[in-house]
Amino acid sequence: MSVDRTRLLLDTIKRLLRRGATGHLRKIVNKTHAADLAVVFRFLRLREQEALFDLMDNVEHEAMLFSELEEEILLKLIEDMPAEKIAGIMEQMPKDDVADLLGKLSDERAKALLDLMTKEGSEEVEGLLGYDAETAGGIMVPDFIALKDATTAREAIAALQKDYVDVEMPFYLYVVDDHENLVGVISLRELVVVPSETRLKSIMATDVVSVPTDVDQEEVARIVARYNVLAVPVVDEKNKLVGIVTVDDVIDIIREEATEDFLKMAGAGDDLIESQSVLKSTRTRLPWLLASWIGGVIAFLIIGHFESTLNKLVYLAAFIPIIMGMGGNIGTQSSTIVVRGLATGRLNLKQMWEVAFKELMIGFLLGFFYGLLLGFVVQFRYDAWLLGVTVGLAVISSMTIAAMVGSLVPMVFARINIDPAVATGPFVTTSIDILSVFFYFQIATVLLRL
Amino acid sequence: MSVDRTRLLLDTIKRLLRRGATGHLRKIVNKTHAADLAVVFRFLRLREQEALFDLMDNVEHEAMLFSELEEEILLKLIEDMPAEKIAGIMEQMPKDDVADLLGKLSDERAKALLDLMTKEGSEEVEGLLGYDAETAGGIMVPDFIALKDATTAREAIAALQKDYVDVEMPFYLYVVDDHENLVGVISLRELVVVPSETRLKSIMATDVVSVPTDVDQEEVARIVARYNVLAVPVVDEKNKLVGIVTVDDVIDIIREEATEDFLKMAGAGDDLIESQSVLKSTRTRLPWLLASWIGGVIAFLIIGHFESTLNKLVYLAAFIPIIMGMGGNIGTQSSTIVVRGLATGRLNLKQMWEVAFKELMIGFLLGFFYGLLLGFVVQFRYDAWLLGVTVGLAVISSMTIAAMVGSLVPMVFARINIDPAVATGPFVTTSIDILSVFFYFQIATVLLRL
Repeated sequence: MSVDRTRLLLDTIKRLLRRGATGHLRKIVNKTHAADLAVVFRFLRLREQEALFDLMDNVEHEAMLFSELEEEILLKLIEDMPAEKIAGIMEQMPKDDVADLLGKLSDERAKALLDLMTKEGSEEVEGLLGYDAETAGGIMVPDFIALKDATTAREAIAALQKDYVDVEMPFYLYVVDDHENLVGVISLRELVVVPSETRLKSIMATDVVSVPTDVDQEEVARIVARYNVLAVPVVDEKNKLVGIVTVDDVIDIIREEATEDFLKMAGAGDDLIESQSVLKSTRTRLPWLLASWIGGVIAFLIIGHFESTLNKLVYLAAFIPIIMGMGGNIGTQSSTIVVRGLATGRLNLKQMWEVAFKELMIGFLLGFFYGLLLGFVVQFRYDAWLLGVTVGLAVISSMTIAAMVGSLVPMVFARINIDPAVATGPFVTTSIDILSVFFYFQIATVLLRL
Repeated sequence: MSVDRTRLLLDTIKRLLRRGATGHLRKIVNKTHAADLAVVFRFLRLREQEALFDLMDNVEHEAMLFSELEEEILLKLIEDMPAEKIAGIMEQMPKDDVADLLGKLSDERAKALLDLMTKEGSEEVEGLLGYDAETAGGIMVPDFIALKDATTAREAIAALQKDYVDVEMPFYLYVVDDHENLVGVISLRELVVVPSETRLKSIMATDVVSVPTDVDQEEVARIVARYNVLAVPVVDEKNKLVGIVTVDDVIDIIREEATEDFLKMAGAGDDLIESQSVLKSTRTRLPWLLASWIGGVIAFLIIGHFESTLNKLVYLAAFIPIIMGMGGNIGTQSSTIVVRGLATGRLNLKQMWEVAFKELMIGFLLGFFYGLLLGFVVQFRYDAWLLGVTVGLAVISSMTIAAMVGSLVPMVFARINIDPAVATGPFVTTSIDILSVFFYFQIATVLLRL
């Protein structure tokens, strides 16, 4: 459904809600895709969401909606819902989504809900709860198709019809040996085109890419992206197949991780929640600005230190914004290139010094260009060539340092295992501000003999 | 293959290349996945890449490598390759990748290569070349499975074995009527579990989500992400099925678009090419810094305008960095939240004023906090409460304005159909710098009666 059609749907639903046209609403709600309903829910108040939800007739549809809803909305929606109702819906949800949801509830409530689920369902969920949410183990689903290597194509298809009806993404059949170790993979497509007595052993691909349970979800996403597969099997430490991560979850991860990196770099939290209240948003963003505030106070002390220089030539102050601004901007360019390069795997830490040196060169060249330009402007306006040289050199030093700091800092953080996106934003801009101002006044004091 | 294993592979290949151990290299190259070879190629010189490529035995493997290689590397690699060789490889590549490649070559060379391909292949590619590269038409592949609605499951499976052996992602079967209009979809899995005489008509899902050829690739990606499908059918203006976009291409699009937005926001071009030379990178980044330079000159003129104020109280200058820095940082937070919200579809332009007002409130609260803090510091250090009030108010005004400008500018750009990511970076930071400085000196002049 396109953006326009979603908006139309939202407007229709809002109008019908106002009118209380329950019969009409029920029809619409039950034939709308859960993914579209999830978008509509974002723009409704809790009371309206509850009214719509009550009109849903089908528990599978409800389960899909639960999977699609944003966490904040879902948590509010189920707050007053009877536990039996929730447990019934959870039974129909992909088990990784259930584990995510339970992880957000109080231990007490999570346990109560698990107790209400069937034994099979709750065991699967409990298995997943043992893994860190952001690892392969935390995002895998435990339902996959695993068959022995001596199985024939005919038997495999029969198994699909009988034992694996509920499997979410049944496009690969994994082949295991007698110890349930993963030994091969066959696509469903290959299965249907071979003679029915063919044994899986003879048609399976043996170079199957798998991941251990504890590998980070970003690495799983990179593997899916690199090998163009629809699912990655997850194995435990004994190479036993324990789950698969499907491509639809990988897409969500790639989008979330990109959003997270964006927000982290800007120091705006790590989750994009427009539905947060003003006060909550303020709290999230407050600490990130502290670095910048402290940096500003340091810059202020530095300038105070050069007060006598400034007293003698007061319009030195007028160049502070351009020198800080040019440094800040090129520093942001450099750190963005490096942070994104590391995130996509297109840059590796082995190249650290090479990249920093290259950025230093670029910073110098750009600084030379814009410094020269500024020098000319100053010479032209004030006819003071020494002042021109001073501000020109200040721009060059600011931009050169900024490009190097901007590229080096995220790589150093990555090397010592601190998320480069988090550290970069406030740290880079603040240190560039301080260094720019310091070198500017130092150059002015020396060159203008103030 | 994990990052560590890729590095090991790279080191091994480099060592063998130095030794000229051709036999050993040939074995490794031919059993390595094309996606991994593509990563290795990134770290090799052209001569080494050519040496490895010459060792590849299998044209399908070569075709996969072509699809996986980064554009810049591929273009250099084929520069001196015989046209017959290239055409032979192109024959095996997904046709959307061939169209992308030809789009990057001179018209002459593209035509020569097309002429060398089989009629079927070149017609498919020419069909794709008619669409804009960043639309559904430009990223679709023309091979998909389309069957009439009266077909039985048995006949469908027979068709898979006979007519559709080369289809890239044969997980959905599309059902068309007599005019080749798309009327339904069946997953391969459903097909194998129904009785063999069942007609497609009776099991197909009719609410199939399709896109027209001219829809933007980002919208296609959003649809795949929203509905968790493995492929989206593309239809022409008469609802005739003309191709499908597969999930593996969608993953690449999501990653590329995120990277593009990152770089655009930082004003660092729109493609992450670490392999670019220093001079080329400098050229790419130069124009983006111009906005910042001009902003700096304007800030300089503004401060010059307040020269008499500054002359009377020279250490007003010392607060310029903190006032600019706080504004710049909160402005970046606001614009990042909005740009990313628009890109992920979680924010829509209807909410423009609501979001801007909320940001204004957040900016005011954060400004109040940090302004008060700074005011206290000043009062404590200089015992000058009026100066404290001045800088405190300047921080409040700077941060409030910055949050509003930072959120409003990308939404206004989006409304007039200018990419918000492009416009935001230089425009927002520059205008915030100027406004912050102006209001600061205005407040100082009035309050301190300078």
